[in-house]
Amino acid sequence: MAEGQRVVVGMDVGATKVLAGYVDEAGRVLRQARSPMDRSNQDAALWSIEAALEALMSAPWEGPAPLAVGFGVVGQTDPATATWVRAMNIPIHTSVDMTARFTARYGLPAAVDNDVHAATLAELRWGAGRGAREFIYLNVGTGVAAGLVCNGQLVRGAANYAGELGHMAVAGEDILCPCGRRGCLEPVASGGGMIQRARDLLPTYPDSALGRLPEGMPLDAHAIFTYAEAGDPLAQRLASEAVEALGKALVNLINLLNPEIIVVGGGVFADGWLLPRLRAVVERDALSGALRTLRGIHLSTLQPDLVGLLGAAVLAWDRIAS
Amino acid sequence: MAEGQRVVVGMDVGATKVLAGYVDEAGRVLRQARSPMDRSNQDAALWSIEAALEALMSAPWEGPAPLAVGFGVVGQTDPATATWVRAMNIPIHTSVDMTARFTARYGLPAAVDNDVHAATLAELRWGAGRGAREFIYLNVGTGVAAGLVCNGQLVRGAANYAGELGHMAVAGEDILCPCGRRGCLEPVASGGGMIQRARDLLPTYPDSALGRLPEGMPLDAHAIFTYAEAGDPLAQRLASEAVEALGKALVNLINLLNPEIIVVGGGVFADGWLLPRLRAVVERDALSGALRTLRGIHLSTLQPDLVGLLGAAVLAWDRIAS
Repeated sequence: MAEGQRVVVGMDVGATKVLAGYVDEAGRVLRQARSPMDRSNQDAALWSIEAALEALMSAPWEGPAPLAVGFGVVGQTDPATATWVRAMNIPIHTSVDMTARFTARYGLPAAVDNDVHAATLAELRWGAGRGAREFIYLNVGTGVAAGLVCNGQLVRGAANYAGELGHMAVAGEDILCPCGRRGCLEPVASGGGMIQRARDLLPTYPDSALGRLPEGMPLDAHAIFTYAEAGDPLAQRLASEAVEALGKALVNLINLLNPEIIVVGGGVFADGWLLPRLRAVVERDALSGALRTLRGIHLSTLQPDLVGLLGAAVLAWDRIAS
Repeated sequence: MAEGQRVVVGMDVGATKVLAGYVDEAGRVLRQARSPMDRSNQDAALWSIEAALEALMSAPWEGPAPLAVGFGVVGQTDPATATWVRAMNIPIHTSVDMTARFTARYGLPAAVDNDVHAATLAELRWGAGRGAREFIYLNVGTGVAAGLVCNGQLVRGAANYAGELGHMAVAGEDILCPCGRRGCLEPVASGGGMIQRARDLLPTYPDSALGRLPEGMPLDAHAIFTYAEAGDPLAQRLASEAVEALGKALVNLINLLNPEIIVVGGGVFADGWLLPRLRAVVERDALSGALRTLRGIHLSTLQPDLVGLLGAAVLAWDRIAS
């Protein structure tokens, strides 16, 4: 343990598990503890978080005492008051004061923000967005979301709601989104949306390989990209719709915000198929004035299963710095 | 003249005229001078600006000496170095160091930015956006542009190119933009675009009143809105396309940036027809999470012919403060 080293606790609170860890100022995860997330009700969910935190804090540890705890969570948060306002995937119906509920007993300040804001901060501090002042993080997993950094600061918006890219109107008017509008990005380009759309369209493409995938290959974005490459017409249609819709959304963002760097992450990028195709749409369609200063669209270089934890740690570091 | 009053010079550099003025810290324009803009070549254009500045500075004046000069110009600028990089509407092909060219002789620092960024700052400092930290200024005149304020700061982007809303893909794929792409906002919703589109579609609507407007009523957004209201099918089509496309763009911005206040300005809003219809689209389509904290979409309360001058003055005030 280096002399003078300082650490915080990062808490990555997800729908299936809670990951807790000590993180130093260089973004090194020095120790981790993990608990399953019990989503049967709000109390059970909060106990799951407490269990992970307690498991980390009570284990023998020769390093320095942590200085703060940051929570990256799903749902709506109020970072100014360290409050988890509500969530859907985890049953949080009554707002939670994170300091009172989790960290006061340790004498530590708490910070909270949503998972995408947290991941954006991790990419900006320790990832491929390091040092950028104008930066966009695009996450395409089950859903689609963006984190925006302007003038070196995360854009949170008036209600910490900024970055809601999933309902940007960029797709065909024939596609109805669960939100009730037509043309939203998410049903066409998210992992969850692509699966749903494949199911909806399979009856129209009875010969598609997506209807009889090999044992062990689930119907997901990876399967769609794989069979698109192999020439399957339904897979090609779904993949191409996803590329064009995501490309349009990214071009809109580039023209609007004139970023230096874009970092992409999330499961839909994992197999490497999507990113070069997205880059091609951006180069074809973005305005040259905005494109000239874009240094690249990079895949996240942070370890995918640690991005959430690292982001939560940045929240904690920022809490102390402010 | 109040004791201790301080002033700067604002320079609103437009394609037809240059407006120079002394502006105090409360946004009062204490004196103005105006020169026509000679666009025959770069030298002539720069001389026009110099003439307006000299006319202001050389006239007898009992107020305090100005502290800085801010220029709001069309085209591409680099605010960090006070450089006017290039412009199209005014023939600026070689970049201009505004300090060396205009203000060093008076011993004054110079600041420069584009007209939309300047107007955004004026609305934020002295207009309907006063005090907002999360703010959008939407200008619809000959073109369409936006000014974005996040975390209390104007978003300039990596090359001072941020706010390019005119080419957001929100319209039908059948509409080709001069930029070469399809579906851009500007050809459908800007004043210039609406006029062009009316001309293109008139042969298809030979009975439209837009083809035989009364003496003294030019074919413009105001005429289109007026005859849409009177039931003219072409005018209704154009007006409704403009409302829907602008609405989509504004909804995208609201979902993405979660602003507290939106201020609209520019000639297309002048007759009052557009704004209530735009508000209705926003209320229908924006995500409730982002809408909850939106306090309003307001028409600019600044005098339309002074917004540019006031914005230029904010640039000068910011130059001194920094």
